[in-house]
Amino acid sequence: MSEGFFLKGNICHTPSLGSLVIAEDSYLLCMDGRCEGIFSEIPAQYAEYPVKDTGGCLIIPGLVDMHIHAPQFSYRGLGMDCELLEWLYKYAYPEESKYADLSYADKAYGIFAKTLAATATTRAVVFATVHREATLRLMDIMEKTGMVSCIGKVNMDRDAPDGLRETDADSAAADTLAFVTQALERGYRNTYPIITPRFIPSCTDTLLQKISEIRKRFDLPVQSHLSENPDEVEMVRKLVPEAAFYGDAYDRVGLFGGDSRTVMAHCIYSTEEEIALMKQNGVWVAHCPDCNMNVSSGIAPIRRYLGKGLRVGLGTDVAGGHTESMFRAVTAAIQVSKLYWRLVNQGSEPLSFPESLYLATKGGGSFFGQVGSFEDGYEFDAVVLDDSVLPHPQPLTVQERLERAFYLGLDRNGIRSKYVRGNQIFR
Amino acid sequence: MSEGFFLKGNICHTPSLGSLVIAEDSYLLCMDGRCEGIFSEIPAQYAEYPVKDTGGCLIIPGLVDMHIHAPQFSYRGLGMDCELLEWLYKYAYPEESKYADLSYADKAYGIFAKTLAATATTRAVVFATVHREATLRLMDIMEKTGMVSCIGKVNMDRDAPDGLRETDADSAAADTLAFVTQALERGYRNTYPIITPRFIPSCTDTLLQKISEIRKRFDLPVQSHLSENPDEVEMVRKLVPEAAFYGDAYDRVGLFGGDSRTVMAHCIYSTEEEIALMKQNGVWVAHCPDCNMNVSSGIAPIRRYLGKGLRVGLGTDVAGGHTESMFRAVTAAIQVSKLYWRLVNQGSEPLSFPESLYLATKGGGSFFGQVGSFEDGYEFDAVVLDDSVLPHPQPLTVQERLERAFYLGLDRNGIRSKYVRGNQIFR
Repeated sequence: MSEGFFLKGNICHTPSLGSLVIAEDSYLLCMDGRCEGIFSEIPAQYAEYPVKDTGGCLIIPGLVDMHIHAPQFSYRGLGMDCELLEWLYKYAYPEESKYADLSYADKAYGIFAKTLAATATTRAVVFATVHREATLRLMDIMEKTGMVSCIGKVNMDRDAPDGLRETDADSAAADTLAFVTQALERGYRNTYPIITPRFIPSCTDTLLQKISEIRKRFDLPVQSHLSENPDEVEMVRKLVPEAAFYGDAYDRVGLFGGDSRTVMAHCIYSTEEEIALMKQNGVWVAHCPDCNMNVSSGIAPIRRYLGKGLRVGLGTDVAGGHTESMFRAVTAAIQVSKLYWRLVNQGSEPLSFPESLYLATKGGGSFFGQVGSFEDGYEFDAVVLDDSVLPHPQPLTVQERLERAFYLGLDRNGIRSKYVRGNQIFR
Repeated sequence: MSEGFFLKGNICHTPSLGSLVIAEDSYLLCMDGRCEGIFSEIPAQYAEYPVKDTGGCLIIPGLVDMHIHAPQFSYRGLGMDCELLEWLYKYAYPEESKYADLSYADKAYGIFAKTLAATATTRAVVFATVHREATLRLMDIMEKTGMVSCIGKVNMDRDAPDGLRETDADSAAADTLAFVTQALERGYRNTYPIITPRFIPSCTDTLLQKISEIRKRFDLPVQSHLSENPDEVEMVRKLVPEAAFYGDAYDRVGLFGGDSRTVMAHCIYSTEEEIALMKQNGVWVAHCPDCNMNVSSGIAPIRRYLGKGLRVGLGTDVAGGHTESMFRAVTAAIQVSKLYWRLVNQGSEPLSFPESLYLATKGGGSFFGQVGSFEDGYEFDAVVLDDSVLPHPQPLTVQERLERAFYLGLDRNGIRSKYVRGNQIFR
């Protein structure tokens, strides 16, 4: 793309937390894959650029899923009858074991990628499994969708079933190095490797140190889980007694922000010290409200994190979360914030719709750079929503149409087109 | 219908709380609108009956929505930024005012009925507005769908905005009598009037007494709201100081179960006394988890109610609830029960999927008689679900397919047909 074009419609975005900026019946300029202005009329100097008129559709930034497990996609919506640690052994690990079989991986990841491509998600931070080859296949498949993703081969060298537990730290690190090298060699345009220790219970200190070195050598980002469940937090305390708190077990080996761009899923039970370190190191929080309900984990204190200036995005966390819909993540985050207010702390104001939308776009988007907003210079990731499939008897404002689109799950049947970095990748 | 037919497929139902009975690749016999047996092979004496083969689809009982506001359907998914009492004045009452205009009512109720007919809901207990004519129009429209519903003209003679507040108890009662008489005169087959005091804050004792007399005269059921929000409960305490508790304000005038078949929505803040009276009088609880989140009300202690043997069904409560999907009500009830366990009472075991499905079928169905199960003699309300639209790489059991269908909202795009009282009413 070296030329510009306009997308015309009702342009909605959240340049700052809590603001919802709407430009009705306006023109959004894309130039070389980036946003270059919102105009009520086409400026004379751009008169030759083509206009894609959406016919009054809603135009929103692409949504950023900060936490999703690709291999678990096959059993989303199943096995919602236990807490995290039991759930891993009963459902997650048996399914993940199957990805040693590349034909199974191709089939399952093909379904995953095809489904995700049809959603409003434009970027995702993705867990694969411990299997290097299958993870590279996932990267091949995701690259073809045109979406942008960070994809990690998972590391786990303790407390995992046979077949998923890596033999030892040395071979696991060697395999991870091979994964990173091969992923980079493939020259993807939109698909990036990410260092992915599953979580502290399943990684020895030695392995963490070794993959931290790989991370540093290639300047890679990091994803993992943090303070999701009380039993898990207690397990970490026993396994790593020298760590002052859960996050410190990552920080001691250089895998908790700072130089490394790091996202941690959940953060429900983070202590004051842990929160302070996340703030200091610029760690992103991936808030996954549906998963936090489904495996009975609790509710993350997102208002508190926002008040402290932490970086926060939203994740679907398939398959602890049952759906890949980021629209649902937006409304679920609002719903649980209301229950948190009611049941836990009435000083914690519920999230508004514009706030939750911010988290799902610019909040998580910042992990990828200038992403998740239509401000000048931001990468042109956009979703066009046709809400004419939802009849209504009364006039609605654009803001009302937008809120309704999210609550009613219009990402299922109302996406007319999707752009990533200025390229139309869907319909 | 005076003949029989078989529906063939994977038959799933919950004859008792917590049980999920599955008859794979079997035949469900419908005779004169009622279930007459599940067979693995067609018995010789029924050999001449036609078989409708669903080709491996899931066959479940029709779902019963125990609480939905038809006039609020037009703004579902909007205005989720306040608590109940503010929400009523800011969103609900302004919209309900519009139904004085019959052309608006026809249009809005037409959309409501058409949408509901395409869901898995077969029966519903419905609030209309104070407007008699518009409510009768709603009954006309719902009757045409073939669904079964109880529909109430709302009563409110205090604490309501001009235009919605009935002038006085006498005229309100006269209007209600006219509504009931006219509704009965129309000779509907599937549509029934129900006495509908909005809630105690909006009804004087005098009006309650008068509509209780109408109820008794015509032996009608009753629907209302109960103990939804702390401010509402406190308001009732001040308005009716002579009532021992909220529910007693209904019971004192004969509108709280006993002789009257009564359903009360929400019941989040019910006291021990109130629970005991609900049990004694056989009052149904309409549990509406999405609404309870959206207007920040809290979580109803459903496990406790079930333990005490109360009658419990599920409601979408559109538009405090944002969606008409009873599939979502089933999964939302499970989700909030997990948060209740985690945040409120770890002695309160979360609802299982079979339990929540029971509430949505036989639990609420009992309000309509022998409804919500495929046991012999039950009315033949059935939904045929085609989950082939959800690809997956691995084999799934019928139970897994069923659970997944609910979590992934297959009611949006997977309903192949729907039967009410043995009549196919959709597709």
